[in-house]
Amino acid sequence: MRRSIATVCISGTLDDKLTAAAAAGFDGIELFENDLVVSPWSPSEVRSRCADLGLSIDLYQPFRDFEAVGPSLLRRNLDRAARKFDVMASLGVDTVLVCSSVSPDSVDDDELAASQLAALADRAGERGMRIAYEALAWGRHVSTWDHSWRIVQLADHPALGLCLDSFHVLSREVSPDGIAGITPGKIFFLQLADAPHLRMDVLQWSRHHRLFPGQGAFDLPRFVELVLAAGYDGPLSLEVFNDVFRQADPARTAVDAMRSLTALEDRLGSRRLPPAPDLTGHAFTEFAVDGHSGPELRSALRGLGFAHTGQHRTKPVELWEQAACRIVLNSAVTHPGPAMISAFAVTSSDPLRSLARAEALSAPAHPNVREPGEAELAAITAPDGTSVFVTHPGDDWRSDFLPTGGTASGDAGLLTVDHLGLAQPFDHFDEAGLFYQSVLGLEHLATEEYAAPYGLMRSRAMSNPSRAVRLALTVAVLRRGEWAPAVADPQHVAFTTADIVATAAALTLPKLRIPDNYYDDLAARFALPDDFITTLSRHGILYDRDPSGSELLHLYTPVFGGRVFFEIIERRHGYDRSGEPNAPVRMAAQRHRRLTTSNHPYGTSQAVP
Amino acid sequence: MRRSIATVCISGTLDDKLTAAAAAGFDGIELFENDLVVSPWSPSEVRSRCADLGLSIDLYQPFRDFEAVGPSLLRRNLDRAARKFDVMASLGVDTVLVCSSVSPDSVDDDELAASQLAALADRAGERGMRIAYEALAWGRHVSTWDHSWRIVQLADHPALGLCLDSFHVLSREVSPDGIAGITPGKIFFLQLADAPHLRMDVLQWSRHHRLFPGQGAFDLPRFVELVLAAGYDGPLSLEVFNDVFRQADPARTAVDAMRSLTALEDRLGSRRLPPAPDLTGHAFTEFAVDGHSGPELRSALRGLGFAHTGQHRTKPVELWEQAACRIVLNSAVTHPGPAMISAFAVTSSDPLRSLARAEALSAPAHPNVREPGEAELAAITAPDGTSVFVTHPGDDWRSDFLPTGGTASGDAGLLTVDHLGLAQPFDHFDEAGLFYQSVLGLEHLATEEYAAPYGLMRSRAMSNPSRAVRLALTVAVLRRGEWAPAVADPQHVAFTTADIVATAAALTLPKLRIPDNYYDDLAARFALPDDFITTLSRHGILYDRDPSGSELLHLYTPVFGGRVFFEIIERRHGYDRSGEPNAPVRMAAQRHRRLTTSNHPYGTSQAVP
Repeated sequence: MRRSIATVCISGTLDDKLTAAAAAGFDGIELFENDLVVSPWSPSEVRSRCADLGLSIDLYQPFRDFEAVGPSLLRRNLDRAARKFDVMASLGVDTVLVCSSVSPDSVDDDELAASQLAALADRAGERGMRIAYEALAWGRHVSTWDHSWRIVQLADHPALGLCLDSFHVLSREVSPDGIAGITPGKIFFLQLADAPHLRMDVLQWSRHHRLFPGQGAFDLPRFVELVLAAGYDGPLSLEVFNDVFRQADPARTAVDAMRSLTALEDRLGSRRLPPAPDLTGHAFTEFAVDGHSGPELRSALRGLGFAHTGQHRTKPVELWEQAACRIVLNSAVTHPGPAMISAFAVTSSDPLRSLARAEALSAPAHPNVREPGEAELAAITAPDGTSVFVTHPGDDWRSDFLPTGGTASGDAGLLTVDHLGLAQPFDHFDEAGLFYQSVLGLEHLATEEYAAPYGLMRSRAMSNPSRAVRLALTVAVLRRGEWAPAVADPQHVAFTTADIVATAAALTLPKLRIPDNYYDDLAARFALPDDFITTLSRHGILYDRDPSGSELLHLYTPVFGGRVFFEIIERRHGYDRSGEPNAPVRMAAQRHRRLTTSNHPYGTSQAVP
Repeated sequence: MRRSIATVCISGTLDDKLTAAAAAGFDGIELFENDLVVSPWSPSEVRSRCADLGLSIDLYQPFRDFEAVGPSLLRRNLDRAARKFDVMASLGVDTVLVCSSVSPDSVDDDELAASQLAALADRAGERGMRIAYEALAWGRHVSTWDHSWRIVQLADHPALGLCLDSFHVLSREVSPDGIAGITPGKIFFLQLADAPHLRMDVLQWSRHHRLFPGQGAFDLPRFVELVLAAGYDGPLSLEVFNDVFRQADPARTAVDAMRSLTALEDRLGSRRLPPAPDLTGHAFTEFAVDGHSGPELRSALRGLGFAHTGQHRTKPVELWEQAACRIVLNSAVTHPGPAMISAFAVTSSDPLRSLARAEALSAPAHPNVREPGEAELAAITAPDGTSVFVTHPGDDWRSDFLPTGGTASGDAGLLTVDHLGLAQPFDHFDEAGLFYQSVLGLEHLATEEYAAPYGLMRSRAMSNPSRAVRLALTVAVLRRGEWAPAVADPQHVAFTTADIVATAAALTLPKLRIPDNYYDDLAARFALPDDFITTLSRHGILYDRDPSGSELLHLYTPVFGGRVFFEIIERRHGYDRSGEPNAPVRMAAQRHRRLTTSNHPYGTSQAVP
């Protein structure tokens, strides 16, 4: 199917928007009137710019407050429309979106609305144009798709059809089922937007919080199936009003948008992608370190019971291991700064298929820079710039490392990587969610918000079905400013243990001080035995319990290397969350430690927990 | 009355919050449980820290999901409460907030709720403590103040009373009038929060969008009067959950909070401030300029018909004039950068009273640095750092300037300053609104949002009653990031003219190119005569009309000196808005000009229109 995007979805000037849409591979655009009005390009210049870029103009939008008015206002509205038809002729676009009226001048009279829309369609038809009538969810008299369809049927004009917008349909209680029964050919245009479930005024919800398909809570595959069942063969066109996308890099947003449509078509079966292979675990996590952060991380890894087991044959890269936990320290950084997760690798039952799927989803793999004889590893780039390697469990990437002879004692009892905590750049949180969901096949488990010392945080837990690969994506709910800089939210790796108390006792690294107040409150909240609380408190172990009685025991380390910490996790009885209620405790403790320990070389770029 | 603030209102650690509250002059705090739980200070350490700072702890909050449960859960809840009473004893606080339950375990039974709250009050009373019961607006069974009052009356226990929170009361439809009839002594605590009118889920509205009194749409003076009529004599205590305040500088937020209470008390008559004197106009607007921006601004002022009429006796400061429009160019800047409005002066019927009022509102005047014999001008500092001078129309501040002999020709016809456009820092937009409202006595006329090329903008029009002093405060709805940096949103001065076409013809400065598409759309929207449109288009004049038929004709200049532009305004038939529908056109045109003219010395700190 052809793929389009409304210019209102992305930031910048019309030039920025068209360039971004074309580069991301869109076939066409919906031209939002305001983008034309403020443009120095004439309509025919816009037309030729689009043609040069290989973009069709599929819809001009919107024409507002047309129907169901008195005769003098109708005359004015028809004059107004005639001027817009002139513009459309210069643009070379044949379909205009007419939204159901929100004007107090309109009356609740379907016959009148239909006859006036037919009059408009007459004039459009004479010029080879057509009218796509859409029920705005907050239309004054017409606010549901079935009502707009009744009016289109009443008007019964070949140049008048429907525009269906998934937001306007799915944000209302009216069932979309009947859409499949709409007369073939009468759906002139299909606009797609996802959205989270929000309990708020539908206009504000629509204008600020729409998302690309797959980023929200709407069942878009089913909705599109209903529209296709009615014989629709026009473009799948995105119309997303989102406060963040409106100010983010348009080139990035357009790629995110294209990925959302590709993933949707994959689910619909109209564009078959290689299925996401099973993921079986975390192969390694790589930190970029410099002369300051490297020693800190080495010391921390030793304290966690890791051993430096391998040295890369050709690069300043070290492998540290403990059971199935593998950390790579890469000192080949070009820009000194806080340590960061520069790459991570997951094991896949079919790495080549994983990469083929990524490529089809606008995330092409780039080969690792390697010397002759080294393992071939290909990585894709996540929205925050992290390299994501996909390897086979049998891959010999460790042969690139010469054994140092070091072996982990195993005393600390760390077993596997439970999850990675990846702080996301503000502009790209929803993009990252869709990236990991579509490219790696992770599920969105839950999104939670909590109050941290410097403002609200949002955290999204994702995992593959077997829970072998988990990610926790975090972002500040509002972009941080001068008082609480967003320079570097910390990232972390969480390791599993079968006995967190024994692990805690075996650790030899600085501890994070968890306040006694926390344990007092814990005892009050969960009615836990005193000796259990004493044990937790002695080791700085945090606790959570879900309504089913499953428990989480976990502990956090201080921040090392300016931006990295570790977590140790014991999940009991199938606890499947991330312990988010304890995140503010961790953040305050890390903040307290930062204020009470010696100056750190990274100054203001230090993590702000 | 005593003034308190809940720790949840402000950002940072408990230490940050207490320090900020004390510095702003608060008498006490409400201690939010989570702030204690994450604190490394024990309750008795918190108590002594507060004592050292001169702060009482007026409320511990909240205790959740207590009442109307089965016997075994009641037992657990009483145990939980006993632990919290221990904490309160160590803190030295005698009142705890108990919110109406939101738990699915609670039942809809007022008698049961009352008897269980009485049992809790028994235990509190034994320890010299008391329970303030509050109806959360989203409580499961108890969600209105009158319902919570019925339950407190049923329980009839001396240690059980009400907590009234203006948000929970005024966000519901239930009339607050009956509050005045509550038995004296039974309102144990009063929490104040304002909020904008939003049509959304009340919990989300409450948790994210509360504001300090005077910043929202609630009638708080009337609400407090009702509470006082019921004999309440405890503190006025702020409890404001706001996403922006949660991540802004706590010292600043606490001052804003204190100002809101002072202004509220002024309106209540419980704390009499010097009334805001009448303002009669704009005396001058000062730009800080450097070696790059100075020449650009001089050239622009000449092009607008201004003359350089005076040179400061001792400083590198120039006075430029045209009729009653006065611009001061101050080259004594210490940090080179884009031009900015460093100060503005308004005329007041009683400048000393204006300054006394400002001082009472935590905005003390600082004397201008001056040499012997120079005019004494005192300024207050606005939230964005701009100096606001208040002068008398007869003040001789111009005597500090030696006449150059230059006089404006008057050909351009500029008459007065219509308004100043002041882009605000993201964290301080609501603070700025309250500042100008309370300190200068301006009214909040309207707040509008519009889509600009780089994201949504919010604009707030403010004015004194006579419209002699108008301000337009603007801010990005979301803090801008990498793609659309927020380094310097442009500021501007708008001048009035009686004949904008004649003024436009007389201007000799570069013009902003307004797209033909704008005029085509204007003609379609307003059905304007062709010759009128042609005139507007020839001069780049923009147009707006309000529903009453009042008209605005205005034009904008390009951005000069990196961050400043000018606007020329003709208001016809009492047009009282700011022409916000045209702001996106202006921003796109300024952006286009920036991209198509030569490199600017300010690079990335260049204004982003």
